[in-house]
Amino acid sequence: MRYQLFYWPGIQGRGEFVRLALEDAGAAYEDVARKAGGMDKMMAMLQSARDKHAPYAPPFLKAGKLVIAQSGNILFYLGPRLKLAPRDEAGRLWLHQLQLTVTDFVKEIHDTHHPIAGGLYYEDQKAEAKKFTHYFLKDRAPKYLGYFEAVLKKSGGPYTLGRKFSYLDLSLFQLVEGLRYAFPDAMARIERKVPHVVAVRDAVAARKRIKAYCMSVRRVAFNEHGIFRHYPELDE
Amino acid sequence: MRYQLFYWPGIQGRGEFVRLALEDAGAAYEDVARKAGGMDKMMAMLQSARDKHAPYAPPFLKAGKLVIAQSGNILFYLGPRLKLAPRDEAGRLWLHQLQLTVTDFVKEIHDTHHPIAGGLYYEDQKAEAKKFTHYFLKDRAPKYLGYFEAVLKKSGGPYTLGRKFSYLDLSLFQLVEGLRYAFPDAMARIERKVPHVVAVRDAVAARKRIKAYCMSVRRVAFNEHGIFRHYPELDE
Repeated sequence: MRYQLFYWPGIQGRGEFVRLALEDAGAAYEDVARKAGGMDKMMAMLQSARDKHAPYAPPFLKAGKLVIAQSGNILFYLGPRLKLAPRDEAGRLWLHQLQLTVTDFVKEIHDTHHPIAGGLYYEDQKAEAKKFTHYFLKDRAPKYLGYFEAVLKKSGGPYTLGRKFSYLDLSLFQLVEGLRYAFPDAMARIERKVPHVVAVRDAVAARKRIKAYCMSVRRVAFNEHGIFRHYPELDE
Repeated sequence: MRYQLFYWPGIQGRGEFVRLALEDAGAAYEDVARKAGGMDKMMAMLQSARDKHAPYAPPFLKAGKLVIAQSGNILFYLGPRLKLAPRDEAGRLWLHQLQLTVTDFVKEIHDTHHPIAGGLYYEDQKAEAKKFTHYFLKDRAPKYLGYFEAVLKKSGGPYTLGRKFSYLDLSLFQLVEGLRYAFPDAMARIERKVPHVVAVRDAVAARKRIKAYCMSVRRVAFNEHGIFRHYPELDE
């Protein structure tokens, strides 16, 4: 199967969680909106007045006739096909549950720079962003990462599911990389309490295909248009 | 199968999306935390140092040996079993994708009164809540509801999946009911543009089991501890 991934070019964003899975599996895929004419194709699918299953927003994946949106839902679909998830129902549901917790975390990470409205600039909500980020770094990030730390401890390690590697480990890698980029000072402190999460990050960084991907032009660099943004005044 | 639902007593919150599905299907279930000693049971499961699959947060459902968290994930599991979702993979993924969009919407609804931090009181973030809600009522609520309106139009109606009733219709009912409670003035205006969504709300309200449920003590009343809160100063 050759997949087509549709996501905003120029940022990693929520599409990156899917991209990491496709890359780690060595799957054949096209990053449609990053090619000439691709943005028009993506917008046409989003705004289709005929397509009954038009998504609410990117990322979405085209797999044959299927069009699947919502990063967690896409990973749920891809997981067993890319050998990045178990095949049994209980195992898939558990992994998906964790991925939806990642999704919740990602939304709060986004809100550190956009707590009032996605339609406003960061500059228009800087005071509120400072307040939001204070509680995010004090309470929320440690709570989410602490939860994944506890899951990893109980799994027996080294991965979320124990010895079996999964797409959730790739998402943990992305969370740590992104948070390090956005909040280097705070993360240096927070990381000390979640060594198992950091160990997963290290293990993923050392995987052959991920290593090659991260050095390639296919990996968009972190920047101040995406989910993880480095505004020094927000770091603590 | 007799299910056990675990959720904070005293609010509808995210648990209500699951509860509506169980009630509409006439499923046998126990609302554990609303019974004597139930809160202790729920907290023990959340804080278990042994259980590998301890959830991050309520709601979660116990189905035999399975424990499933995240409202969208629970509905994905229950859907075909309660005859509230198709059985084929494509149909289940599409419905789940829509439910995850409901989840995103619910988070923004929550943030109308808690834009800065869940750990602070509303009174400590009133000015920010006013700002957030302004953009929420102007842009976000119309955008989300407009998306579901478009899906309903394309489905051929009367339901999200066309002639087949599903748990997504129950969630649309809950969204309209909650938004009417929280923002009666703004919703009167917004609703005019989403007649198909309102028609689903009406169809659900007329369903025998839902009618009985809404008049029973099992339906917690909307209040200012839940997701949908009525603060007159936020309505526009």
